[in-house]
Amino acid sequence: MKRNNKKAIILLSGGLDSATTLAIALKMGFHCYAMTFRYGQRHNIEIDSSRRIAQKMGVIEHRIIDIDLAQFGGSALTDNSINVPMDRAVSGKFNDIPVTYVPARNTIFLSYALAWAEVMGLFDIFIGVNSTDYSGYPDCRSEFVAAFENMANLATAATVEGKGKYTIHTPIINMTKAQIILKGIEIGVDYSLTHSCYCPAENNRPCGHCDSCQLRLKGFAEAGLPDPVKYAD
Amino acid sequence: MKRNNKKAIILLSGGLDSATTLAIALKMGFHCYAMTFRYGQRHNIEIDSSRRIAQKMGVIEHRIIDIDLAQFGGSALTDNSINVPMDRAVSGKFNDIPVTYVPARNTIFLSYALAWAEVMGLFDIFIGVNSTDYSGYPDCRSEFVAAFENMANLATAATVEGKGKYTIHTPIINMTKAQIILKGIEIGVDYSLTHSCYCPAENNRPCGHCDSCQLRLKGFAEAGLPDPVKYAD
Repeated sequence: MKRNNKKAIILLSGGLDSATTLAIALKMGFHCYAMTFRYGQRHNIEIDSSRRIAQKMGVIEHRIIDIDLAQFGGSALTDNSINVPMDRAVSGKFNDIPVTYVPARNTIFLSYALAWAEVMGLFDIFIGVNSTDYSGYPDCRSEFVAAFENMANLATAATVEGKGKYTIHTPIINMTKAQIILKGIEIGVDYSLTHSCYCPAENNRPCGHCDSCQLRLKGFAEAGLPDPVKYAD
Repeated sequence: MKRNNKKAIILLSGGLDSATTLAIALKMGFHCYAMTFRYGQRHNIEIDSSRRIAQKMGVIEHRIIDIDLAQFGGSALTDNSINVPMDRAVSGKFNDIPVTYVPARNTIFLSYALAWAEVMGLFDIFIGVNSTDYSGYPDCRSEFVAAFENMANLATAATVEGKGKYTIHTPIINMTKAQIILKGIEIGVDYSLTHSCYCPAENNRPCGHCDSCQLRLKGFAEAGLPDPVKYAD
């Protein structure tokens, strides 16, 4: 790939998908700025992972933004009274949108990325959404991302003044989890640094049973590789 | 107007435009939930105004959300090193987007409103943007609002599951400031409660010289009414 020397913002959760997305952006030659949200998620241990990933992969600046989505609730990830589903079959798509969906989360994350992008004068934003192997999350679909991109290009002074045009990059949106892992390994992602579990055990080890763990384990199995992360007993 | 008994969220800044928008929503029969942001604005006295307006006008719940847009800067409203322009001519539109534009602010505000709306199961959001008399703010234009509405209807579980369709209401978008004031007076808005100034004096009285004060004063003058707010000497 041709190096482009442009700057980009990467939404970095600390999980497998966003770490791979960061690696792809770096491989494309972008100078990368990472943005992570402490939003009230029960698995806020992922923020530590995001720090390690950002440091190891050489992002230029890593912003950790505090926003309180738990005040709205409505998700198993932000409301402890809603249980995270365990040991579900994760082959193919779910029929229903899982209770781990967080209302308007990616819309809010991308809006903050847009604010930072405009102030920095950059026009490339990467988000590691993935619609193939999982999730049924409405804000992980390409039609949502395209609509956000269209809105972003009408929202800001930078675009109205003709300084550029925003692109929301979704390099892994159509990959299976196994394909993502194989791509990441190829370009040097250290998956031992990543955290995927929605419901970590007391020692912060992944549970191995929530949807996110199950999809990750299935992905490594299909890729024919061991998951370097140590799971709870 | 027919009363509809539906719930709506109103973005309430504490200024003249959003107070009028709230009054219009109430007049339409909506049960109103107000949302105000403490975002790092230099005129955070407007939050006190929003509280008084919400209380007096009878909103069911008023959420004040803390978000830190000052961390990004890029606006005279969030960065004290950028001066608020004073004593500019405010007849018609400005040629340039003013430095009081806050990058992606309305995108972020509407994204939070969308999150709250989805959790509450409501589909009507009001924002008091106004494109006629002023501002050149890109995120006050109808094309931005339409694009946000389109995106919102792709972003959420509520719409994907067919529970409803979001409408972003902008009842004053095409009114002049004088028309807004006359409409507000007609439906009982108490403008003595509102705060418009970007750059209040030490006693929190409006300066009378920033764009926002100038537009307000011009609006009251054109409406042939006195502004009930007391300005700094």
